[in-house]
Amino acid sequence: MELWFSEMHTPDVKFSVRVARQFCCVQSKYQRIEIFESPEFGRFLTLDGFMMLTEKDEFIYHEMISHVPMAAHPDAKNILVIGAGDGGVMRELSKYAQIEKIDVAEIDSEVVRLCREFLPQTAIGFNDPRVNIFFEDGLKFVRNRENEYDVIIVDSTDPFGPGEGLFSKEFYGNCSAALRPGGILINQHESPFYERDAQIVCRAHKRIVQSFEISRVYQAHIPTYPSGHWLFGFASKAVHPVKNFDAARWNALQIKTRYYNAKLHKGAFYLPSYVEEMLKSGELRVES
Amino acid sequence: MELWFSEMHTPDVKFSVRVARQFCCVQSKYQRIEIFESPEFGRFLTLDGFMMLTEKDEFIYHEMISHVPMAAHPDAKNILVIGAGDGGVMRELSKYAQIEKIDVAEIDSEVVRLCREFLPQTAIGFNDPRVNIFFEDGLKFVRNRENEYDVIIVDSTDPFGPGEGLFSKEFYGNCSAALRPGGILINQHESPFYERDAQIVCRAHKRIVQSFEISRVYQAHIPTYPSGHWLFGFASKAVHPVKNFDAARWNALQIKTRYYNAKLHKGAFYLPSYVEEMLKSGELRVES
Repeated sequence: MELWFSEMHTPDVKFSVRVARQFCCVQSKYQRIEIFESPEFGRFLTLDGFMMLTEKDEFIYHEMISHVPMAAHPDAKNILVIGAGDGGVMRELSKYAQIEKIDVAEIDSEVVRLCREFLPQTAIGFNDPRVNIFFEDGLKFVRNRENEYDVIIVDSTDPFGPGEGLFSKEFYGNCSAALRPGGILINQHESPFYERDAQIVCRAHKRIVQSFEISRVYQAHIPTYPSGHWLFGFASKAVHPVKNFDAARWNALQIKTRYYNAKLHKGAFYLPSYVEEMLKSGELRVES
Repeated sequence: MELWFSEMHTPDVKFSVRVARQFCCVQSKYQRIEIFESPEFGRFLTLDGFMMLTEKDEFIYHEMISHVPMAAHPDAKNILVIGAGDGGVMRELSKYAQIEKIDVAEIDSEVVRLCREFLPQTAIGFNDPRVNIFFEDGLKFVRNRENEYDVIIVDSTDPFGPGEGLFSKEFYGNCSAALRPGGILINQHESPFYERDAQIVCRAHKRIVQSFEISRVYQAHIPTYPSGHWLFGFASKAVHPVKNFDAARWNALQIKTRYYNAKLHKGAFYLPSYVEEMLKSGELRVES
């Protein structure tokens, strides 16, 4: 028997992973949650049929979405994470002793329950005593917060279904209000390569530019995401991710990582010309 | 009807591209050469069933293998290209007015003939009058050359079949002899992500370290190659790709590119920690 999970990266491109077994297939109030075992990637989680993480390459995504803001901010103590039901972001954040509070707004408690049961590699992040989970819509959660967080990390699904509001102008504006003056907003930004994904990148970037003085995009190699070329958005009213970055300070923390490092921090912001142009054209449309 | 090209990136990972038609399927003396049309990637070339280039993303590979050495070398005039039967490397090199000679050693004349017929986007590179094609084994071609080239670019297939010798210690030693004192050798280096590919990276790097004082590795996002995370080797007896890099000099040339730029040049050498460790472990084995 051959069992394959396939995801259409576009209507004409298919990525397939051999599956050894399925651990669960649950329809929650919000989405279909499945966890599989595979020979190449270990266990992996899908939501509504889209690959969310695999045990083999989740370290790249989770390190890049967590350490870039933590290293750029001079002293991040209060963190808000939106989404992140698998726990991976909190696992990375738990490496920082100076953090006092990690609020997590995850809409779907079923994701957390199933990840705790079948994905201990990331769900270990929930064990940090500084983590407070709120099973709420991130969009609503952030509306009531003001001047409270140093870093907000938006570890959302794609902007379809439950993740849609997390790519809206209203949401970015509320994040801006929820952040302290030197605060940083990070969001996963999709890929620049395939056309439909690139449109999401442009739209998200354009909206963030309207809410923050500093808005940069950085990249990582994530093999199980469409095209393998993934972007993250970095936004702040005061902190520039490269110009204000103190590599020595981060290195002194001696945090163990497998993908992120202080040199790569800077390199990740040096984007291909076609991506720079794509982002600029969005910025221009904002100005005019 | 549905027609799909599939490539196994590992025995348990499959990448599939919808095909509109096949232009040719020729068994040459060395390999099976096929060219297809696809809705997502335009035309694409496979050798022995492995994806070599697509019209949609070949600019990334060809810019990164060509402009990094051309921008790092202060005045490259004589270039040797090994492989590159599709012409893409020469298309990029032809943007440099200071180049006097581009020797090309391609083992398989059938690749050149078919690319000229079906892949004009890259084959246009053969039209530069400074290009001299030698239908010879690159391994043998480079044996007879001494102190002749400023840059050698090895645009090889994987180290199986006709490309195998281009990953050997003897070959790297001969390249070293064929280069002028400040010369640069570039080779495609496979991917660090999947285990079999990573072994090739380590072996190639270890051998190059033995022939050159300076040996660095850089990366790019190439969506149609396994994992999308691709490496290139940069080797020289005198030129360091980052420390000796003069961004202003390259920017003054006003060469038009879509992926490569002077900032990304540096960023491409800032590798993920796990890749740095992989390369270091190879270097250590050399020393001991």
